[in-house]
Amino acid sequence: MFDRYYDELEVGDKRVFRAMTVTEAHIVGFAGVTGDHYVLHTDAEYAKRSPFGQRVAHGLLVLSLGAGLIPLEPGRVAALLRLEDVRFLAPTFIGDTVHPEMEVVSKTDRAPGGLVVVDEMIRNQRDDVVCTARLHVLVAARPPGI
Amino acid sequence: MFDRYYDELEVGDKRVFRAMTVTEAHIVGFAGVTGDHYVLHTDAEYAKRSPFGQRVAHGLLVLSLGAGLIPLEPGRVAALLRLEDVRFLAPTFIGDTVHPEMEVVSKTDRAPGGLVVVDEMIRNQRDDVVCTARLHVLVAARPPGI
Amino acid sequence: MFDRYYDELEVGDKRVFRAMTVTEAHIVGFAGVTGDHYVLHTDAEYAKRSPFGQRVAHGLLVLSLGAGLIPLEPGRVAALLRLEDVRFLAPTFIGDTVHPEMEVVSKTDRAPGGLVVVDEMIRNQRDDVVCTARLHVLVAARPPGI
Amino acid sequence: MFDRYYDELEVGDKRVFRAMTVTEAHIVGFAGVTGDHYVLHTDAEYAKRSPFGQRVAHGLLVLSLGAGLIPLEPGRVAALLRLEDVRFLAPTFIGDTVHPEMEVVSKTDRAPGGLVVVDEMIRNQRDDVVCTARLHVLVAARPPGI
Amino acid sequence: MFDRYYDELEVGDKRVFRAMTVTEAHIVGFAGVTGDHYVLHTDAEYAKRSPFGQRVAHGLLVLSLGAGLIPLEPGRVAALLRLEDVRFLAPTFIGDTVHPEMEVVSKTDRAPGGLVVVDEMIRNQRDDVVCTARLHVLVAARPPGI
Amino acid sequence: MFDRYYDELEVGDKRVFRAMTVTEAHIVGFAGVTGDHYVLHTDAEYAKRSPFGQRVAHGLLVLSLGAGLIPLEPGRVAALLRLEDVRFLAPTFIGDTVHPEMEVVSKTDRAPGGLVVVDEMIRNQRDDVVCTARLHVLVAARPPGI
Repeated sequence: MFDRYYDELEVGDKRVFRAMTVTEAHIVGFAGVTGDHYVLHTDAEYAKRSPFGQRVAHGLLVLSLGAGLIPLEPGRVAALLRLEDVRFLAPTFIGDTVHPEMEVVSKTDRAPGGLVVVDEMIRNQRDDVVCTARLHVLVAARPPGI
Repeated sequence: MFDRYYDELEVGDKRVFRAMTVTEAHIVGFAGVTGDHYVLHTDAEYAKRSPFGQRVAHGLLVLSLGAGLIPLEPGRVAALLRLEDVRFLAPTFIGDTVHPEMEVVSKTDRAPGGLVVVDEMIRNQRDDVVCTARLHVLVAARPPGI
Repeated sequence: MFDRYYDELEVGDKRVFRAMTVTEAHIVGFAGVTGDHYVLHTDAEYAKRSPFGQRVAHGLLVLSLGAGLIPLEPGRVAALLRLEDVRFLAPTFIGDTVHPEMEVVSKTDRAPGGLVVVDEMIRNQRDDVVCTARLHVLVAARPPGI
Repeated sequence: MFDRYYDELEVGDKRVFRAMTVTEAHIVGFAGVTGDHYVLHTDAEYAKRSPFGQRVAHGLLVLSLGAGLIPLEPGRVAALLRLEDVRFLAPTFIGDTVHPEMEVVSKTDRAPGGLVVVDEMIRNQRDDVVCTARLHVLVAARPPGI
Repeated sequence: MFDRYYDELEVGDKRVFRAMTVTEAHIVGFAGVTGDHYVLHTDAEYAKRSPFGQRVAHGLLVLSLGAGLIPLEPGRVAALLRLEDVRFLAPTFIGDTVHPEMEVVSKTDRAPGGLVVVDEMIRNQRDDVVCTARLHVLVAARPPGI
Repeated sequence: MFDRYYDELEVGDKRVFRAMTVTEAHIVGFAGVTGDHYVLHTDAEYAKRSPFGQRVAHGLLVLSLGAGLIPLEPGRVAALLRLEDVRFLAPTFIGDTVHPEMEVVSKTDRAPGGLVVVDEMIRNQRDDVVCTARLHVLVAARPPGI
């Protein structure tokens, strides 16, 4: 989505993006950077006895991969303003492969660019929807002469 | 908040948590794990010419630190279900020190524990609110005999 | 232990702390940060032919997890002064889950806080003691009015 | 030291090893891998008000660098058995450059190799001794024909 | 370049790609993953006395950023076969911002796709060419129906 | 090789160096630091359907391990000037263990040291040659009195 300028995005535009496999190294790395070493993510013995039956990825890691898996060309996104409603619907386990899908749901001019609202759905390799979110993003106008 | 069981949390409970300094290493690490190397976070020359004037931390990194900075004792959080409304209100720059504050806004029994809704506010060392979020968390009941 | 002030700790206090699974990512990460890429930790073929039969975690990683797995509330630990006797008693393999147990063995006032000596034992999921250590920690007094 | 076999080490052997600069990235990385995000290491505002006046590196990071900065040739170290006495004598700040110095203090045959006791001293660029330790290391004999 | 299929690339195509700032965290991270902790990259005191006057990034890190800074859409690159001639022409210091520029210099059919030879030039924010390389890349044909 | 000064290296000198196992954590870490998250390295589902049948390590990671696996004593390497011809001959999969072998092919005085050209071959545990390269390295002369 965000390889486009404000004027290049239309309500109803849909995109399916590439996928990434969530590895143990992602969970350990995410825990390390954020400090969230909660046992459901990092203690295999505890997780085995939990309803999940195994370690699960942080919901916020999965949500963040949603941003990391889309092309982010310089100059398009001016700011991520808001996540209107993020729902974590299914666990992501080590070895699952997730990808985001997005659809533009509204555009509001805010010269020189505008506010774009995007619905995001993150799916895994079994086609389960693991996370949904509505993003409010300030997108720049195409600079003159480009 | 989440060093407590469902029955130990009351509507109106407020907590201020410890802080962490957001370093260049956090931004590089978060970009690496998530794949989000957007220029506002990783290209100092681009960022210098942007309205921010310098590189900014990923909003989702700041939000994730909100989870990483609170004590997460085993067995309390059963699942993070939803982020009802996340607003990124001010940029976090390299060297800023952020901490979360939380308040329980509602409790709904879902035996054997319950759903706890928490309002979170993340502030920096200048006391700016950089991010707010409403979290819906499934919290476990205190196990008998503990 | 170190979610308490000096005056809140008593000789004989015992605590069992949460566990973490030592993953390949921990070993690669620890090797990377410290520079200790010794073959027993990083070369699976070499390790297979060694008496251990497989890669082992760095002893110092296991010892460091002992610090990382206990709640460290701001303001309690003033300084870690000494490790009196650290013994690495059994190997930690990839996938093992370790946790620390601690007991206060002595307290000596050093106004405004004091020196606390703690015996630490790190166990794995098979209940083997993999590491023991005696820690000398300078702990702060509870600040007035808290 | 540990680029040598048991029979190549003599009591009184001394070595000065290379140095490494302890960066913010080391501290963030070590905190992440071990889970030890204590405020003295990670919260610049807190550290500013502490007796240290700034963030300090984890003692165990500095001690671990002592292992990472020496050449560790395959086949020499059979196991690190014990740290007899580790003392953290001075803080290591971000930007300090530390290096280990070692001296063999005793050798005891344990066929086919032996136990080597080594005194280690870690110094910084101001020549302060920041850490001392006595290491007990099981060292292999030179294999026949090498 | 490699957001295109073989049949979409023409000899003479030129592209200038986005930039990234090389931080201390990149150097520490790259040293950690690869094991190359050479003093010119990791010992600030040593580097100060070297002809470079300060720490320099690994040449292979800069070369690797050349791959990491271009859009790599799934399905285009089948394999990186060869680096014909890589020259490290100027040092990259901490804080420098580098970007790759590429030009297609030849195409050779290798059904179902072909071999594409690309000249790469990596420049910094002072417009110095820090590295050049000639890459031989196996690129896939556009799949029918896409 | 580069634990020696220029005058200590002779044309024809050959060395076989230690090995390291390439883990998922190396690939995730290398992708993170360089930004190269190409699907062949990071998407297990995509890689399964590719000719490789599974995720492969980045060629540049394998090449970089070639530098990380040789002893790099301070003061020997003045600069890595050129990689004359790097060929990626076979894939490196997660769990493969690679090591470099080197041979000095020429020496040219460049007072006070000289240019050393080295042929490198990286092999895996099945003895496949996965990568070859010719390195041009500026090596320092032995300082007087050492």
